[in-house]
Amino acid sequence: MRCFVTGGAGFIGSNLVDRLLAENHRVVAYDNFSTGQLSFLEQALKNPNFRLIRSNLHDFEVLKEVMQGSDFVFHLAANADVRGGINQPRKDLEVNTIGTFNVLEAMRQNKVPRIAFSSTGSIYGEPEVFPTPENAPFPIQTSLYGASKLAGEGLIEAFCEGFGIQSYIFRFVSILGERYTHGHVFDFYKKLRANPTEIEVLGNGKQRKSYMYIQDCLDAILTAIQHPQAQAQVNVFNLGTNEYCEVNNSLDWICAKLGLNPVRHYTGGERGWIGDSPFIFLDCSKIRALGWQPKLTIRESVEYTLDYLVAAQALLEK
Amino acid sequence: MRCFVTGGAGFIGSNLVDRLLAENHRVVAYDNFSTGQLSFLEQALKNPNFRLIRSNLHDFEVLKEVMQGSDFVFHLAANADVRGGINQPRKDLEVNTIGTFNVLEAMRQNKVPRIAFSSTGSIYGEPEVFPTPENAPFPIQTSLYGASKLAGEGLIEAFCEGFGIQSYIFRFVSILGERYTHGHVFDFYKKLRANPTEIEVLGNGKQRKSYMYIQDCLDAILTAIQHPQAQAQVNVFNLGTNEYCEVNNSLDWICAKLGLNPVRHYTGGERGWIGDSPFIFLDCSKIRALGWQPKLTIRESVEYTLDYLVAAQALLEK
Repeated sequence: MRCFVTGGAGFIGSNLVDRLLAENHRVVAYDNFSTGQLSFLEQALKNPNFRLIRSNLHDFEVLKEVMQGSDFVFHLAANADVRGGINQPRKDLEVNTIGTFNVLEAMRQNKVPRIAFSSTGSIYGEPEVFPTPENAPFPIQTSLYGASKLAGEGLIEAFCEGFGIQSYIFRFVSILGERYTHGHVFDFYKKLRANPTEIEVLGNGKQRKSYMYIQDCLDAILTAIQHPQAQAQVNVFNLGTNEYCEVNNSLDWICAKLGLNPVRHYTGGERGWIGDSPFIFLDCSKIRALGWQPKLTIRESVEYTLDYLVAAQALLEK
Repeated sequence: MRCFVTGGAGFIGSNLVDRLLAENHRVVAYDNFSTGQLSFLEQALKNPNFRLIRSNLHDFEVLKEVMQGSDFVFHLAANADVRGGINQPRKDLEVNTIGTFNVLEAMRQNKVPRIAFSSTGSIYGEPEVFPTPENAPFPIQTSLYGASKLAGEGLIEAFCEGFGIQSYIFRFVSILGERYTHGHVFDFYKKLRANPTEIEVLGNGKQRKSYMYIQDCLDAILTAIQHPQAQAQVNVFNLGTNEYCEVNNSLDWICAKLGLNPVRHYTGGERGWIGDSPFIFLDCSKIRALGWQPKLTIRESVEYTLDYLVAAQALLEK
């Protein structure tokens, strides 16, 4: 398969690139290196089946040209700074919504037939049903990030109906693991490295969150797109584990591994920031029905990610 | 109230302008006249409480400047050419999604606290529940128009959560009545005027649709935004009648009024065009619970609209 991976130098994208190359697919990675890192592609760059394009989704002519001949687009490029929306309201629109439109329009013009998209559990806003299934009641958005992913999903679906594209929309919980470069484990470890005796926790620490290990996430994506029971025109899957934890639990595990016992200062409130969802727990029975299941628990993912960050100190200097 | 009406020279917008002026509000209409018509504002332009701005939603600096001091934004400007999405995929994104973002960003910068938005029943795609309630299962989009309105709703909700704006999102069925300038009554009458003996009908004519009279639509909007039981931060309402008709029924009524009996040629299929929903029937119990109810039936709306078009021949020359 000739694969085109947007955001191919990022956390999820570069791991996907490695998996696809290992399965002997040809891979073009497209990344503007706004958060992607060349070091993540160190192995890939040695592979003759790999090609890297350094460009932006807004350079439509470039995007269109280099996408030619692709069989499958994995559209992972996104502004993933969920908390920052409030300070830069236009960024999610430009990078995520308009960026996704450009990917779809390049697919249409190049007749690329299939796309997988990294959506988010945040799209459910603050749901009333837990675990939250894919066909939950019509949600109300609570963040510009969620709104931009909702817009992306809608565009993909409309292109599927209008132009015969087939799509896989994956609504992720937060992903952890190797090459992880932002999120709560990153923030906590960075803070504790600077000051091991005290730590600030956003919100009341009781936010209940789901996390998933990157390789489990990629297993799920690769399972779904090849599965004979997932060949509808639009295939929507929640991706997560069958569990959740409190932010406080995760901090306990991190502190235990580091041998620290810092005083915790809570900023207070049920949410870590405006648009933060106090409880994310997705019903993943649909993807599990295809035979997939995660290999790591949330705790194992958190601990594994911490080990990775401890070993990859350079990432923390950003 | 100082009202700001985007699309204020259009079908729904100009009727709203007249209603707001009649209630002694001050009104600024903002329109690029892509489909709006100056003649629709003939009465408004005589009113000292009215001001017309001829500009585009993409001229952000103009939009921001002229919105200053507004209390309430009625955001009706949109590309409403539902069928055209397939030929101009970028248009719905630019006019509807980015346009809505610009309206919200201008509101944020000007501290305008409230917005009403014309969304659409098309946002439910092809629902499985009829009549379809506001909290129907998470829909799959089937048109670029629906996708652009979904994106608009998400942006509005995120701005509400992030910046304390209050919103009223109205999911309309198709609206009929005075100043109606596109849609099936328009198309059928125009075709019959050109050839009274034969007519082409898109699809099989059995599409079941809901329609509502413009003044009933405006009654509902004005009821909701003032109602003490509709003061949540985000208020979503379906707007329609408690009935539906087949396209064939509507054509029967039109032909009966014109005294014609044309041979009908069906293009075939359950849908009139790609992205057409074969059945639209909204559950409007939420808005009815506020005391609102429509005054005209679908048949009365169709007949009234035909009378209007017969009297306003100039509209058909476009």
